[in-house]
Amino acid sequence: MRYLQVEDMRDLAYGAAILGTGGGGDPYIGMLLAEQVIREYGPVKLVGLDEIDDDAFSASVAYVGAPVVMIEKLMGFADMVKAFQSLERYMGRKFTAVISAEIGGANSIVPVSVAAALNLPLIDADGMGRAYPEIPLVTWTLHGISATPMAMADEKGNSLILETIDNHWTERFSRSIATDMGAEASAALYPASGSELKRSSVPNSVTRVIEIGKAISDARDAHHNVIETVLKATDGIHLFTGKIVDVLRRIEGGYSRGECTIEGLGDYRGQKMVLHFQNENLIAFVDDDPVAVVPDLITLLDSDTGDAVTTEHLRYGYRVDAIGIPCDPQWRTPEGLALGGPAHFGYEVEYVPIEQRA
Amino acid sequence: MRYLQVEDMRDLAYGAAILGTGGGGDPYIGMLLAEQVIREYGPVKLVGLDEIDDDAFSASVAYVGAPVVMIEKLMGFADMVKAFQSLERYMGRKFTAVISAEIGGANSIVPVSVAAALNLPLIDADGMGRAYPEIPLVTWTLHGISATPMAMADEKGNSLILETIDNHWTERFSRSIATDMGAEASAALYPASGSELKRSSVPNSVTRVIEIGKAISDARDAHHNVIETVLKATDGIHLFTGKIVDVLRRIEGGYSRGECTIEGLGDYRGQKMVLHFQNENLIAFVDDDPVAVVPDLITLLDSDTGDAVTTEHLRYGYRVDAIGIPCDPQWRTPEGLALGGPAHFGYEVEYVPIEQRA
Repeated sequence: MRYLQVEDMRDLAYGAAILGTGGGGDPYIGMLLAEQVIREYGPVKLVGLDEIDDDAFSASVAYVGAPVVMIEKLMGFADMVKAFQSLERYMGRKFTAVISAEIGGANSIVPVSVAAALNLPLIDADGMGRAYPEIPLVTWTLHGISATPMAMADEKGNSLILETIDNHWTERFSRSIATDMGAEASAALYPASGSELKRSSVPNSVTRVIEIGKAISDARDAHHNVIETVLKATDGIHLFTGKIVDVLRRIEGGYSRGECTIEGLGDYRGQKMVLHFQNENLIAFVDDDPVAVVPDLITLLDSDTGDAVTTEHLRYGYRVDAIGIPCDPQWRTPEGLALGGPAHFGYEVEYVPIEQRA
Repeated sequence: MRYLQVEDMRDLAYGAAILGTGGGGDPYIGMLLAEQVIREYGPVKLVGLDEIDDDAFSASVAYVGAPVVMIEKLMGFADMVKAFQSLERYMGRKFTAVISAEIGGANSIVPVSVAAALNLPLIDADGMGRAYPEIPLVTWTLHGISATPMAMADEKGNSLILETIDNHWTERFSRSIATDMGAEASAALYPASGSELKRSSVPNSVTRVIEIGKAISDARDAHHNVIETVLKATDGIHLFTGKIVDVLRRIEGGYSRGECTIEGLGDYRGQKMVLHFQNENLIAFVDDDPVAVVPDLITLLDSDTGDAVTTEHLRYGYRVDAIGIPCDPQWRTPEGLALGGPAHFGYEVEYVPIEQRA
């Protein structure tokens, strides 16, 4: 057990950007929000899975929709609290903790704000160990835990409660609703007990992102190479260095989808990387060979600063290093690959763990 | 106060088809369902607005979506009861009556089934005095009554509760959700008290459709002219006789939209009627002059049988008579016209009451 302080928020944001694998929204905005909320309400208690009771009762809070919009439409914190509380009212039971559904991107920081504002502990775990673009894509689904009842709310004052037969229907409805709500909506979902979470979550992931972020901050202060530091802190593998020469991006069914083409520089001169994304980076090809495949994480780093580059910030001329990070072991089981592997996103590419490819 | 019996269902269906103004779904299916339910559960008590208590508490039940699908996807009665009961659970209060939101088409018959199955009275009134293609288009909206909390359910077992800031947002969300649910969904909506309904509803409309239907049945038995009977029973005005020569129909944003072109026959030879619809018939032009304009009702009758022809049954070669029926006076106020008049549907046509045009 420890407390998350204002000064942890920057590390959390840096680390979450790395594990955000290009998606999950810009954590910088989430960081500003969390800093402000902790200043106002005080530090947040971070509790390990082994420290919570079996009958603890938690829910996740997350922004659902296309993260590109988040830049223009500042995330509505009040709506997130409203969604969380309307789920409590619907279920007739108070939540005793908050947990992150994903540990990459803004959705890993927003739960800190809700925990602070409601004086609830945050569980040091999540349902992905990365960011993923669809609601069912959590380890919780592999254990039969339902995303519903789920509450959604927007900044206009609209809200709703979903009850579905499976997490794929939840995804379908919530995408349409998020689109109607202005491409992005606040959601409270995956209500679950302590015993359910213990057997199904990715453990210690909040601590992990803060450590990654701290390593980056320290490297920067000491003028060390940030990219090497990220590789070391994440057990990552260097994939490519180059310059972005083309970005195709479209909003489709409530997702930001697209491809980014990177022309090799230095050791990679003469080679070409094509990176496919759906909110998050999904698969990276070098000269048509897959070099990293979902569920492994693919992150682009700004070659100058080492900052993670989210898919909505991709633009012509950006010099980037692409890195790959091994995913949580749950995603490498046959069930995990069926749920969140390349075939789910329409790629006929065999999944080989990134350490084996390298 | 009277009881609705099995044998009233046919008259209700015939009358509802006339006031359905081309939309509201095929009432024949609703009739079969209501007959079966009344046989199983017994007759339904029909109570006038003046017979209900001010603190009575009712909701409407209705199919939301594109009625063309109703032909292929038999309406799920269990889902309708489920929606009604999940709204009760959400509101923490039992409903003491059922009321129809619209009196045209299948949605005027479905509430009979729910009332029968749950042993509740049906209120002899509705929120339109016709059929309309959008949730906010009820006289209740003119009196500030909210469609939400609203429950929706599908035959797969998915359900949800909506809480919105106004009835236009309800429409927007429920269209998307109905589309996801398979183009059609069961809904329970417009929870309201007796005193609210008394000042805002179209009175006696269930009795009215049954009387219209009865007049048609009697005319048919006596080999009288059905079309003349319909005109007399509805205070209707004959608009056109002809043969359908073209139908353009598309499913757009969860609606059946289109135009139907009718070539004049008999007295109308050489003339052409073009009828625009969005689930319901909206506006009829003869040689480019508007002859009937929403909110007045426009209904096509089969020239041979006098049966109302719904928009999903329009097809080349059909011989039809077009009739117009004056709408409820509430729709002719400035507020009524702003809500449900031609401008709402994008027509720059002045509304002139159909009796004045004729």
